Amino acid sequence: MDNDEQQIRGLIADWGRLSAEGNLHQLLTLMDEDVVFLVAGQPPMRGKVAFAEGFKKAVEQFRIDVASDIQEIKVLGDWAFGWNHLTVTMTPLKGGSPNRRAGYTLTIFRKKKDGKWVLVRDANLLAEERK
Amino acid sequence: MDNDEQQIRGLIADWGRLSAEGNLHQLLTLMDEDVVFLVAGQPPMRGKVAFAEGFKKAVEQFRIDVASDIQEIKVLGDWAFGWNHLTVTMTPLKGGSPNRRAGYTLTIFRKKKDGKWVLVRDANLLAEERK
Repeated sequence: MDNDEQQIRGLIADWGRLSAEGNLHQLLTLMDEDVVFLVAGQPPMRGKVAFAEGFKKAVEQFRIDVASDIQEIKVLGDWAFGWNHLTVTMTPLKGGSPNRRAGYTLTIFRKKKDGKWVLVRDANLLAEERK
Repeated sequence: MDNDEQQIRGLIADWGRLSAEGNLHQLLTLMDEDVVFLVAGQPPMRGKVAFAEGFKKAVEQFRIDVASDIQEIKVLGDWAFGWNHLTVTMTPLKGGSPNRRAGYTLTIFRKKKDGKWVLVRDANLLAEERK
């Protein structure tokens, strides 16, 4: 596995850890300024500010646990894409049943001039798990 | 707009036209052998054979009309990614109300050795339109 692929795997692991910690400040360092998140049934979420607003609302109410199972990472010079199977568990901080969503993401990454990889585009196909 | 971007836009236009025509044979020339289609709530659809099976079932029952509104195409040498807003109308051949789904796709393309662009990975976020 090459060093770039390792760094991207590290980014994905960090994303999960920082989500569980509610660490918005560090999460924002993992994405590009003009990041776009695509989610079914919603308008595209563009930019760090939009992400920050959504994340803040979520972590006021929930602990977010992410389990990822990377299916592919393909490095193309200073760009990369990959797809991943995620299970996201949102546990209410005030008690109550956790909500679990699972499914795939398709993600574009790029390597910035300082050598650090960031997330650029992400399509999130997670759906509520059938019980 | 460079020639590669024009070719990818042509591929997307051809995809819509061939879907409406039910032309599976030509559609299959627009995708890579190891293509992967990701759709919410379903396992990944891998390879041309899986696509062909799903498409055949659909066109036995429906006419498929696709309207696309390309949001971005980024060419990275022999690879590219893009996202697109699609509206897909499935009209029953035997009469009845059409079903309309709309939403975004995030897609990876690559240029084959013969210079022809093909679709490699696609995440499809289309959802039924709210009425």
